[in-house]
Amino acid sequence: MLSVAEAQARILADLVPTGPELVSLAESWGRIAVADIAARLDNPPADMSAMDGYAVRAEDCAPGNVLSLVGEGPAGHPFPGRVGSGETVRLYTGSVVPQGADAILIQENARQDAERVTVAATPGVGQHIRRRGQDFARGEMVVPAGRALTARDIGLVAAANHAWVAVRRRPVVVILSTGDEIALPGDPIAPGGIANSNTPMLAALVRACGGEPVMLPAARDTAPDIARLAQGIETADLLLTVGGASVGRYDLVQQGLERIGLTVDFWKIAMRPGKPLMHGRIGRVPVLGLPGNPVAALVCGLIFALPAIRALAGHQERCLPEDRAILGGDLPENDRRADYLRATLSRVPDGSLVATAFDRQDSAMLHILASSQALILRPPFAPPARAGESCRVVRLDTLSI
Amino acid sequence: MLSVAEAQARILADLVPTGPELVSLAESWGRIAVADIAARLDNPPADMSAMDGYAVRAEDCAPGNVLSLVGEGPAGHPFPGRVGSGETVRLYTGSVVPQGADAILIQENARQDAERVTVAATPGVGQHIRRRGQDFARGEMVVPAGRALTARDIGLVAAANHAWVAVRRRPVVVILSTGDEIALPGDPIAPGGIANSNTPMLAALVRACGGEPVMLPAARDTAPDIARLAQGIETADLLLTVGGASVGRYDLVQQGLERIGLTVDFWKIAMRPGKPLMHGRIGRVPVLGLPGNPVAALVCGLIFALPAIRALAGHQERCLPEDRAILGGDLPENDRRADYLRATLSRVPDGSLVATAFDRQDSAMLHILASSQALILRPPFAPPARAGESCRVVRLDTLSI
Repeated sequence: MLSVAEAQARILADLVPTGPELVSLAESWGRIAVADIAARLDNPPADMSAMDGYAVRAEDCAPGNVLSLVGEGPAGHPFPGRVGSGETVRLYTGSVVPQGADAILIQENARQDAERVTVAATPGVGQHIRRRGQDFARGEMVVPAGRALTARDIGLVAAANHAWVAVRRRPVVVILSTGDEIALPGDPIAPGGIANSNTPMLAALVRACGGEPVMLPAARDTAPDIARLAQGIETADLLLTVGGASVGRYDLVQQGLERIGLTVDFWKIAMRPGKPLMHGRIGRVPVLGLPGNPVAALVCGLIFALPAIRALAGHQERCLPEDRAILGGDLPENDRRADYLRATLSRVPDGSLVATAFDRQDSAMLHILASSQALILRPPFAPPARAGESCRVVRLDTLSI
Repeated sequence: MLSVAEAQARILADLVPTGPELVSLAESWGRIAVADIAARLDNPPADMSAMDGYAVRAEDCAPGNVLSLVGEGPAGHPFPGRVGSGETVRLYTGSVVPQGADAILIQENARQDAERVTVAATPGVGQHIRRRGQDFARGEMVVPAGRALTARDIGLVAAANHAWVAVRRRPVVVILSTGDEIALPGDPIAPGGIANSNTPMLAALVRACGGEPVMLPAARDTAPDIARLAQGIETADLLLTVGGASVGRYDLVQQGLERIGLTVDFWKIAMRPGKPLMHGRIGRVPVLGLPGNPVAALVCGLIFALPAIRALAGHQERCLPEDRAILGGDLPENDRRADYLRATLSRVPDGSLVATAFDRQDSAMLHILASSQALILRPPFAPPARAGESCRVVRLDTLSI
């Protein structure tokens, strides 16, 4: 059995991000920039006023001095002339500072009476002026390649005068659940059968990772049916199969996919839930075979499919971040399989996170999985741990997964 | 000037969540459930085997005993008969446990030779059996009203046999930027003009809050143009205006919107960046007037528009969560306006967050805003604070905003 880290490394080893596509800036939220984005102009484009007030020469502004108002320059309508000695021009936030002026006399420090402006307090040279290019200069990189674009990034890219952004294409992830016992929600369910929870759940996981899910109809438990449904996989970026990856007689995913060229890399991981995990390729398409148990499918999805999809999508941070928390209860020693315990989170008054494992860790309990706010990570052969000790957690409550 | 909390309360006071719409389960990721969702079946639907092995009567399983194999019941194909004394049935993970059996003899503890199965270790009564309904029972609520559906929730709702989900409609949020100085990115920019960053940035913010943005063309700085562009607003759920909310001569948003029925509730908040914030209504449509400075627009968007959109969308948690961090540098005392300082985050070895404010807090610095990982919250009249003290932060790095 491989360790989790070895398996992640082998899965990620030869994944190549998808190619670029153009999207309009307004549609680029959450997408991954393919290349550095450079500013196409200076921002501010000129020296600008940061306040409502008057463009002045600071040396003219002894308190009590009276300046001659020679014009105005509202935002978008720069005053075309020059501020001479003893002169001033009315400005507003975002106005271009006219030539000759070197400070802004804010309106709270001035009294205007027709064409005369009386100074009440002296501004410093440069005060309340935003210098041309102080935010960014033309040619400066504003967003680096590989960034998942936030609302703030989009504002910055817009200010840098881009209407289009080259982003990575969403990787197409095909989901193939198998099993004679599963039926689509709402379809007739045979005796002893269950509703197919894995396909829609993993489709949502794929979306959360920046991929584009393709849900296949579920395959029956025969190798030919599995092979038939996976036909055409060569146009996908990743195939996720679910179920049929354990050792029983009815474990036919590998047999089915071998008919269309599967080569298997490995298929057992030292973790719980989810020992049976298959990794391989059909031609250029990587294949991950997740266990059929929905809790194991989701946890293996988080630990292996999420980094793979994020790598294909061009994300720079691939694996889920780990946090530290305080254990809310005792835990027994662990065996040779890394354990991912479903847990709740709370906070103690000093703000520290407390993670408490559910008593029932049965990997068929979807309701407990959906109620979990974190997974507590227990490495192989971890000694017994007591309430109050520090532990490693993956937070689920911030993920939408 | 109103406090931030008073302003939030007045904005949220009479917002009503949008009505329901049906979406297919596969399209429900991130949407808000309108009503409690109850299970339509028991899960598991019957007593099921949790392992590959043999259905047995535990009392027959003294080590060395030989059982007679009378059939098999793979998942989806329940064995139709009964397990009698001294008999066993081959099962797999997810198989229905046949009548008469009360335990699963896992295959690792058995040796099968044609129709004879030799017991190597005695299972406990009920061992490796998942009881009917142990995950959830028919009629049990599996997802509560108001929940933003995660991938795990979708798995649970699928297992509960729903193909459709009633979710809240995405609130339609109309964005109207104003200003003679702004041009759409890629369009010709006049001297002293800037690219319109607010409209696409706020559209992304709206999406991040679960809303549907409608971007209007930017209005010129005249009351009639503003009124003309805001016509038809009655079909929206919220109007966000940007710019023109301060006290200068060219501040025309209120004058423009009053022509189509705006009533103003308040328009000044004791915060920085962003003192000029307008709240009102046009008929039934709430209106928020954000400052035109992009940094102030984004921060006011986070503090006021985000909770409003989340309230309209039916989210139960409306305001951004606050975290605690350790100050990475000294801060001076604060005046009467609550301050939201752009900051970076790092971690010290014990895992605690450290928040360090940027030296430049100029509210025109979009590049610094986009690089920020948190806002440090400084309440009005906060005393000077020293590096190492605890502070309140809103994390931006986990938000996609």
